[in-house]
Amino acid sequence: MIIEKKDSDNFQNRRVDPDLIIKGGTVITMSGDMEPIRDAAVFVTDGIITDIREINVNDHFPDLKAEIIDAHDAIIMPGLINAHSHTAMTVFRGIADDLPLKKWLFEKIFPAEARFLNPDTVYWGALLGCLEMISSGTTCLADGYFFQDSTVQAVHESGLRALIAQGVIDFPAPGVDDPRKNLETAQKFIEKWIGFSDLITPGIFCHSPVTCSRQTLTGAFKISKDFGLPLQIHLSETSEEVNEIMKQEGVRPVHYLDRIGLLDSSLIAAHSIHLDPEEMEILSKKGVRIAHVPESNMKLCVGTARVSKMAGMGLDIGLGTDGCASNNNLDLFQVMDIAAKLSKVIDLDPVSLDAKTVLAMATSRGASVLGLERDTGTLEKGKKADIIVVDTHAPHLCPIYDPFSAIVYSANGADVKDVIVNGKVLMKNREFKTLDKTEIMAQVNNISKSITI
Amino acid sequence: MIIEKKDSDNFQNRRVDPDLIIKGGTVITMSGDMEPIRDAAVFVTDGIITDIREINVNDHFPDLKAEIIDAHDAIIMPGLINAHSHTAMTVFRGIADDLPLKKWLFEKIFPAEARFLNPDTVYWGALLGCLEMISSGTTCLADGYFFQDSTVQAVHESGLRALIAQGVIDFPAPGVDDPRKNLETAQKFIEKWIGFSDLITPGIFCHSPVTCSRQTLTGAFKISKDFGLPLQIHLSETSEEVNEIMKQEGVRPVHYLDRIGLLDSSLIAAHSIHLDPEEMEILSKKGVRIAHVPESNMKLCVGTARVSKMAGMGLDIGLGTDGCASNNNLDLFQVMDIAAKLSKVIDLDPVSLDAKTVLAMATSRGASVLGLERDTGTLEKGKKADIIVVDTHAPHLCPIYDPFSAIVYSANGADVKDVIVNGKVLMKNREFKTLDKTEIMAQVNNISKSITI
Repeated sequence: MIIEKKDSDNFQNRRVDPDLIIKGGTVITMSGDMEPIRDAAVFVTDGIITDIREINVNDHFPDLKAEIIDAHDAIIMPGLINAHSHTAMTVFRGIADDLPLKKWLFEKIFPAEARFLNPDTVYWGALLGCLEMISSGTTCLADGYFFQDSTVQAVHESGLRALIAQGVIDFPAPGVDDPRKNLETAQKFIEKWIGFSDLITPGIFCHSPVTCSRQTLTGAFKISKDFGLPLQIHLSETSEEVNEIMKQEGVRPVHYLDRIGLLDSSLIAAHSIHLDPEEMEILSKKGVRIAHVPESNMKLCVGTARVSKMAGMGLDIGLGTDGCASNNNLDLFQVMDIAAKLSKVIDLDPVSLDAKTVLAMATSRGASVLGLERDTGTLEKGKKADIIVVDTHAPHLCPIYDPFSAIVYSANGADVKDVIVNGKVLMKNREFKTLDKTEIMAQVNNISKSITI
Repeated sequence: MIIEKKDSDNFQNRRVDPDLIIKGGTVITMSGDMEPIRDAAVFVTDGIITDIREINVNDHFPDLKAEIIDAHDAIIMPGLINAHSHTAMTVFRGIADDLPLKKWLFEKIFPAEARFLNPDTVYWGALLGCLEMISSGTTCLADGYFFQDSTVQAVHESGLRALIAQGVIDFPAPGVDDPRKNLETAQKFIEKWIGFSDLITPGIFCHSPVTCSRQTLTGAFKISKDFGLPLQIHLSETSEEVNEIMKQEGVRPVHYLDRIGLLDSSLIAAHSIHLDPEEMEILSKKGVRIAHVPESNMKLCVGTARVSKMAGMGLDIGLGTDGCASNNNLDLFQVMDIAAKLSKVIDLDPVSLDAKTVLAMATSRGASVLGLERDTGTLEKGKKADIIVVDTHAPHLCPIYDPFSAIVYSANGADVKDVIVNGKVLMKNREFKTLDKTEIMAQVNNISKSITI
């Protein structure tokens, strides 16, 4: 079966040889009818997918000078998209677990961030996060944090695709001692990095409607509009936040954000837990994008997002890991498994959030959430080559009756064999090609020795 | 630090050289004060742990002829214990997902079992399950299924420790066409295998109080008592089951089982979801053991066990995977992570089921549940050497502030480097020493081609 040529494609007519061929596996495109293509190959030229088609198992393409990735018996699929993360928080992984939320945040995490975050720790922490994401099949991430020049530098070195947003909060924050300067800092960050790389989109991340004033929220929104960029925010993560907004504004958070003009398709609302049906309806009408982070929500016990209900209303929902202080890893395979199972428990319905739907949330839908659906999220001719190969030579991936089930319910990040972003191989046979694992882990281990909370 | 000598130990006075030394890592004993021992080694002679102590990093033990397992920078801990599984169901892994429970069970799984289970499929399916358990750090399992001679054979070849129970149900079942012969079949199974191996304990598994008559239940209980063996059962997995018993017997299932004399410390009750506080109190008083299977419960959406409440009542609770048709893998690391997070959601308390508690459920408590606490579940002098080594040279295990957190919230089965059972190395540097992975996977893949439902 050959993937249908899209009208926008002109690759059929270009005489270009592929420089990368991923060959011999089952391709899950996550586009069209989503029917897996067996014994197929994906051809890549200049970072773009130029063809996906069945091949003869004996095809070796000796005339082509392309790099060959052997995907024999493997699953070739779009790289996973992490729709919500604070990548550099790897430096705080597991430092404060099994605690009440307020104690965790105000006695542990905020003080740790204030004391130990600096351009150096964020750089190494973000590099470690990139290493972990590559090792578990993530090719694109949305990040919101502080000292974001360091995150840009780390992500750039890693070769990952990313939306990297400068954190904005109306308190003294790491790197922004005077909160009156938070918007200015964010604008400068965007100006510095916009256009720097095809792979990196800068942006703003407002911490929440409670921790940012109306002025800050609308100011951030204006900046994001001026540059045509998404705006990230934590929305209704806790019931306390909802109560606080009700007290301050007399309405629930979504109504408040609607009133101040923040709701449109450029807003990425992470968590989105404590929403009433009317709020969901408004978010849906306005085209707001949702980042669902089930592992963090469960671990911090903040509540449970009604994901299948929101998906049923047509909302675009992606999956995120959140930071490593509340998850404690960046493995989106685990997030998919837990998202599917948690939804069933919450809906009291074993049919809720099936494997295909949840895999779409981690790929094609995730790309939409980040506004990157023209580039990534599916394997189609003309899209950027953001591809992972999942090795199925593992006992827990045997047998495979349904590759979607195998990916969501049986696989884990360690099954990912090869990772390609924008046509560049970042991991091959589990060997990192852009990052020095030993150096990064040594640096973070060293940093961790000075961190006590 | 040297582990305290127990009164029952006589190893201090025996002049025996170790035949196996696991050296250089952080030891989590899961006994005593549970304080990790850094830069330590575990010494094993004739399958028994003879010493656990700090060593000098340069100690190479050149005079000893022992096999050395390098655990430098790794975590050395008790092997995990799977308190509830149907191992051979790997052949049905992912064959019927995201379906309503009744359709899943009556239209898919029961017919598939009737058509495709035979001594051969159970043998290869169980071998695959053993392979997967070894690869993810499980050293001991409780299994209940049919054609159990095949499971015994497979587990015996694998070198794992196991409680293997013949399934009993009052319907025609795989291998037992006439349900009137189910107890006789179970008794013969026990007679055949009792004393066969130190590692394998045979037993009986009653499918449930609904699918087994009072006569079958009491008959099975009598047989288990006659041989001094545990009795496994599915207890209150669904609300339908509770309603059915209420209709038939006028009381809830625990009261019913109490009335017919089934409740004592030899009963292992899997699921144990739909229990009222009085039922939990009775189970606690009678010393019944619980096998908690959160992943399967979530996926089939049967309900949520009140684990922290039951643990607070003093009930011994272990963790299980259930079969691969409802999980869909046998990775107890994932089960630990989900057990901790689900408990927090259910209790609305982020402190519920902390990392240490959940790790105890997968090790020391799990051993108690299976009645094997004298042999396994902790690393102590005099115990059997059931040990795993978790490699921490992975991005997602960096940094480690707390090894318990790292194991429960960050690690996965693929991080397990070495597996030792009864002093025998079953996996070394992820290479299987007892089982032929290629052959087993080829056989199960071949079997799966004939399975259509």
